[in-house]
Amino acid sequence: MTQPLNIGMIGYGFMGRAHTNGYKRVNDFFDVPYRPVLKAACGRDAEKVKAFADNWGYESIEVDWRKLIARDDIDAVDICTPNNLHKEIAIACAEAGKIILCEKPLAMNAAEGEEMCQAVEKAGVDNIVWYNYRRVPAVTLAKNIIASGNLGRIFHYRANFLQDWTIDDNLPQGGAALWRLDAAAAGSGVTGDLLAHCIDTALWLNGSIENVTAMTETFVKERMHNLTGKVQKVSIDDACTFMCRFENGSLGLFESTRYARGHKALYTFEINGEHASIKWDLHDLHRLEYFDHRLEGDMRGWRSIHVSDGDHPYMGNWWVPGLQIGYEHSFVHQVKDFLESLGTDQPAGPTFRDALETQRVCDAVLASAKSLQWTNV
Amino acid sequence: MTQPLNIGMIGYGFMGRAHTNGYKRVNDFFDVPYRPVLKAACGRDAEKVKAFADNWGYESIEVDWRKLIARDDIDAVDICTPNNLHKEIAIACAEAGKIILCEKPLAMNAAEGEEMCQAVEKAGVDNIVWYNYRRVPAVTLAKNIIASGNLGRIFHYRANFLQDWTIDDNLPQGGAALWRLDAAAAGSGVTGDLLAHCIDTALWLNGSIENVTAMTETFVKERMHNLTGKVQKVSIDDACTFMCRFENGSLGLFESTRYARGHKALYTFEINGEHASIKWDLHDLHRLEYFDHRLEGDMRGWRSIHVSDGDHPYMGNWWVPGLQIGYEHSFVHQVKDFLESLGTDQPAGPTFRDALETQRVCDAVLASAKSLQWTNV
Amino acid sequence: MTQPLNIGMIGYGFMGRAHTNGYKRVNDFFDVPYRPVLKAACGRDAEKVKAFADNWGYESIEVDWRKLIARDDIDAVDICTPNNLHKEIAIACAEAGKIILCEKPLAMNAAEGEEMCQAVEKAGVDNIVWYNYRRVPAVTLAKNIIASGNLGRIFHYRANFLQDWTIDDNLPQGGAALWRLDAAAAGSGVTGDLLAHCIDTALWLNGSIENVTAMTETFVKERMHNLTGKVQKVSIDDACTFMCRFENGSLGLFESTRYARGHKALYTFEINGEHASIKWDLHDLHRLEYFDHRLEGDMRGWRSIHVSDGDHPYMGNWWVPGLQIGYEHSFVHQVKDFLESLGTDQPAGPTFRDALETQRVCDAVLASAKSLQWTNV
Amino acid sequence: MTQPLNIGMIGYGFMGRAHTNGYKRVNDFFDVPYRPVLKAACGRDAEKVKAFADNWGYESIEVDWRKLIARDDIDAVDICTPNNLHKEIAIACAEAGKIILCEKPLAMNAAEGEEMCQAVEKAGVDNIVWYNYRRVPAVTLAKNIIASGNLGRIFHYRANFLQDWTIDDNLPQGGAALWRLDAAAAGSGVTGDLLAHCIDTALWLNGSIENVTAMTETFVKERMHNLTGKVQKVSIDDACTFMCRFENGSLGLFESTRYARGHKALYTFEINGEHASIKWDLHDLHRLEYFDHRLEGDMRGWRSIHVSDGDHPYMGNWWVPGLQIGYEHSFVHQVKDFLESLGTDQPAGPTFRDALETQRVCDAVLASAKSLQWTNV
Repeated sequence: MTQPLNIGMIGYGFMGRAHTNGYKRVNDFFDVPYRPVLKAACGRDAEKVKAFADNWGYESIEVDWRKLIARDDIDAVDICTPNNLHKEIAIACAEAGKIILCEKPLAMNAAEGEEMCQAVEKAGVDNIVWYNYRRVPAVTLAKNIIASGNLGRIFHYRANFLQDWTIDDNLPQGGAALWRLDAAAAGSGVTGDLLAHCIDTALWLNGSIENVTAMTETFVKERMHNLTGKVQKVSIDDACTFMCRFENGSLGLFESTRYARGHKALYTFEINGEHASIKWDLHDLHRLEYFDHRLEGDMRGWRSIHVSDGDHPYMGNWWVPGLQIGYEHSFVHQVKDFLESLGTDQPAGPTFRDALETQRVCDAVLASAKSLQWTNV
Repeated sequence: MTQPLNIGMIGYGFMGRAHTNGYKRVNDFFDVPYRPVLKAACGRDAEKVKAFADNWGYESIEVDWRKLIARDDIDAVDICTPNNLHKEIAIACAEAGKIILCEKPLAMNAAEGEEMCQAVEKAGVDNIVWYNYRRVPAVTLAKNIIASGNLGRIFHYRANFLQDWTIDDNLPQGGAALWRLDAAAAGSGVTGDLLAHCIDTALWLNGSIENVTAMTETFVKERMHNLTGKVQKVSIDDACTFMCRFENGSLGLFESTRYARGHKALYTFEINGEHASIKWDLHDLHRLEYFDHRLEGDMRGWRSIHVSDGDHPYMGNWWVPGLQIGYEHSFVHQVKDFLESLGTDQPAGPTFRDALETQRVCDAVLASAKSLQWTNV
Repeated sequence: MTQPLNIGMIGYGFMGRAHTNGYKRVNDFFDVPYRPVLKAACGRDAEKVKAFADNWGYESIEVDWRKLIARDDIDAVDICTPNNLHKEIAIACAEAGKIILCEKPLAMNAAEGEEMCQAVEKAGVDNIVWYNYRRVPAVTLAKNIIASGNLGRIFHYRANFLQDWTIDDNLPQGGAALWRLDAAAAGSGVTGDLLAHCIDTALWLNGSIENVTAMTETFVKERMHNLTGKVQKVSIDDACTFMCRFENGSLGLFESTRYARGHKALYTFEINGEHASIKWDLHDLHRLEYFDHRLEGDMRGWRSIHVSDGDHPYMGNWWVPGLQIGYEHSFVHQVKDFLESLGTDQPAGPTFRDALETQRVCDAVLASAKSLQWTNV
Repeated sequence: MTQPLNIGMIGYGFMGRAHTNGYKRVNDFFDVPYRPVLKAACGRDAEKVKAFADNWGYESIEVDWRKLIARDDIDAVDICTPNNLHKEIAIACAEAGKIILCEKPLAMNAAEGEEMCQAVEKAGVDNIVWYNYRRVPAVTLAKNIIASGNLGRIFHYRANFLQDWTIDDNLPQGGAALWRLDAAAAGSGVTGDLLAHCIDTALWLNGSIENVTAMTETFVKERMHNLTGKVQKVSIDDACTFMCRFENGSLGLFESTRYARGHKALYTFEINGEHASIKWDLHDLHRLEYFDHRLEGDMRGWRSIHVSDGDHPYMGNWWVPGLQIGYEHSFVHQVKDFLESLGTDQPAGPTFRDALETQRVCDAVLASAKSLQWTNV
């Protein structure tokens, strides 16, 4: 029998919608032990959070996250606030014994993240961070192929996350819609927003990173700030690139920017092994490119696997072969795996502890960009 | 205020799931005047229909579709049965004054379809047929481009729908899972199943078809029949190809098959005009290819439009630029448009009458394949 | 030791250049028993043929093809005239005991072709027709894969050849540059010019065609004629599409047009077999797409073979892996194979007799387009 | 009237063939003031150089490059030796007043390159370095687009050159065939061999590089040496990656390796500007990808320009639209441009002086990889 799991959602922006959709759809498609119940949505602006709750079917609202956490009828809290609030809320949740689902990146920096990890581990509460791309079926398939040892020794890992939405000089920074451009709320620019995704996937697929050397740039130096109404210095990184060495001896190359005209959300990675290589691209997320050198010489080529068959990860529960799913399904899959893992000793991951490693890499990247030195993670 | 609209669903297979998902999601993403309520699911096998109802949240079940139609608490009936039952059910619905959403193809043939049209028109009930591909955002964008006159005079229209799932000789025919291989239940093979989609889109984008010449083939002549347990002749068409002339003077070329190894559900179309051309492919449904000859000579090329921006059809209600949606969203969009059209004089379409024209083309195609003559629609 | 082979070239247009380039380059890259010597170029316009000869290094010129054929120092004649002259010249060459390399299509029709075949066979002279696409390395690789039986039973063959260069109403017809638009010189429009290529490849890869049904269209009905200076009816086919059945039981679908905006010379073919499928596209002629269903289920996909390795057909004699060759190399390869075959009982092909079968299919296609009936080849 | 230009070729390997082909073909396709004459080929192994000369039609051979340079009947010397001989030969050529065409990279390092530049400038001889990719038509088109100012302010430049031919541990190093793996002959590994190409193109398209930080790796530490027969340390870089800043304020990211399984010779670059972006890929060298943000919002996309039209750079002299050329044509184009520039004050470039800048960047890259510090060029 499916048990109810009462969800309290803090935040109602883009991610609030994406996570809620995951909760609402999981039981239609997957046979899992819990059924998420949309118990309460929380946000500082009562009118807006009410509209969100009505739209999505949350039973109640709160305007103070402490009150939400204090409620007995909330089993799990989903933290979708700007990054600067993650730590305080998460620690309070842990102390209240709540299950926690925290939006990425885990924290403003690794020091905060370490505190959060200690809190959840001390409390023994189930926890997960929303690095959703692990559960795009093509990415999960890549993980399975790599885990099988199919690639042999790994030589290279490269990834980038390219966008172009902040090129306009007249775009302001800060406030509800644009907190990602405000260092006080976001901690960093593309490093925490975009590179963190690339790093999480890389650590998952290719193991730990030893050291990095990085370069950042802020192309537009000043923007009008929505909270002050004044033109202010922009403190986030518009672009961040780094080179690194992995523990397995392979070389890494990472790039992210919001100034790559023509790319809306182009997250790609490629991994080159002795026997085989793999590529993936978020703009065609339902495909995985695979090259196998062990095939006969004149028949080798990059193979485009349309990840839509019943024996592909998660796909047996959706439609029929050839019919693709989209971005939002990665969240449904994360909910599915998390619900299955609750109370077991096999956390679905990435746990807070897993996400902390990503945070450490981000910190090393930002430090290296400042010091201009190779920096250990 | 959003009004409830009570849905009665007949059938619980692949399409039953796809339509139901459409009903359940539409209000989360679109502001429409009605809210579908999953009132009852209907099927002959009580246990199976119960499981379906429980899974998706239907409030009740029926095992006799006549009883479903007789219920006062049902506003709209969705017909997801095999094709041979469409006519009888649809006419009964019309007579009972129900709104009707009928799975495609409309009927076993145009004669049946004509009866159905007369019934709904006489009853004055809102009606629509589930030719869902019209509402893939890239296809809708194609429609808008064409409607703007952007292409100039049209010379060519070509489409195909290629699959490969019936190549195995040992696959049986008939019964619940494989009624599409049984002519008694399906009427035809790929013509009604696949070509009908291509024809619906073509009529919508390029206008009426005047005449056709067709070729069909049944590659595997006999298969075990699930209902009789005996090896029997296969009566459906495994492949069907036809050439045609459109009223606007352009030439058409259509092909469908279940024997094209490597293609799971490859529906593609291309239209070539004097000034510009358009291509689309279901395997990458979020992209539209466009060639504009009016650009400077050395800068011309096929342009791959990633249909994921806020100003693309339907996309402003989903995620953010660059993040693709999938197959199932076409059904959500059809529900959205249909709900908006209810009670207006602007039917969302394709209405039964629209779908009848597709049926007439299918009939002409099958007749031509038999007579080996050019055949008027 | 390499023997000289004296070439007499009749015609100096596009094909005159392409063939001459083949003669000039073959010995640089391939170790063959003969060395083509550019002995004489022939054309009616002395000034123009002189310029051509000077440009390419022909030792002498002729303005009367009969004189060229009469010369003792000519071993082989290359016929690059408009189609309406092929027959007379070829028969004269055969009677003079010359080796013959004839531009495609072989003749104006199959009756002419039959006479030509009888002439070369009676004379016992080596002969070949310039269906050059057989020797694009990726196409040759396709042939080898098919010949190995790798695909299993064949279900479908489809090909098209799409161009867009005659859409402009103001383009005239006829004369030196535009004889392809003049039925008197060309015999037909796209059928002989473009479809003939598709048919030659198809017969080579997939065997004989039994019967056809075709459709042709002339979109621009009248054009100014360069030879008369008057606006005259256009008698060629601007577009030609046909369906057919092959002897091996597979279905064929062919299309060609000069009205497909966005396609400059898009020749594609695809063949679907029980186990595997193959696709090719002239716009990326160095790639072959291959799908193998025998691989593990979740790892299947279309594989893009970059045909540039040393073990790919012809490629060991060019550069290094990854570096592509182009269109013109297909002619070098044809010269290479033809020179190796001279005097052996293994003609390089397509011989006149091979090309006659293509002609018969073209005739059947044009007859069907007129009669609107299925027509046997 | 076309003047003869007597060529003396030193070296007869892969590049000896590629350059010679350029000399032999240029006059067939381009109307230039000079006609290269293959006067002499030079190499230390008399038998091998004789075979090369016979194959390609060189009139004579030399086994001592000093003798070649001393000959009065040599106008221009083409240096295709391993890199460690470039300096000595080039300076001797300059002193003898010969025109010089030198294979890339210019020298073992910038110090050598500086000597070479001074020698040719003092002597006033025409000189060029074989960075052939500038003259792939799609790359030249990219240059033209950028030169027009079409892209606006530039934010990012990224390039990579990926190969996979040295992954096998059993591959030896050194000797005639494998001097590229021997640091004594090659100076460096992928940096001089592959990255040098990327850097030359980048400097040409995007201007000077200010500083770099680099990472190199040698994956296989020891290989049998062909010259000594012993297993020896491998001193070249198997992979080299660097980040940099350009003078125009844009960020650069470069990578090259011979350990990227699945890539034979994948040279790609991408440049992102305020208004538009450009991508190119050597594996499909006849295409240029272009994104223009100034088009209407819902019609934007990456445009694949098939660079095969008469108004594309160099293409008017080859075949007809849609028919692609290949790798080797870039050398023909370089010969063409160089011959046109002889004796003018508009050197075709890259001159020795231009190539020296590439050398300086390579030196800075290698120095940074050693010091692990950001390094000025």
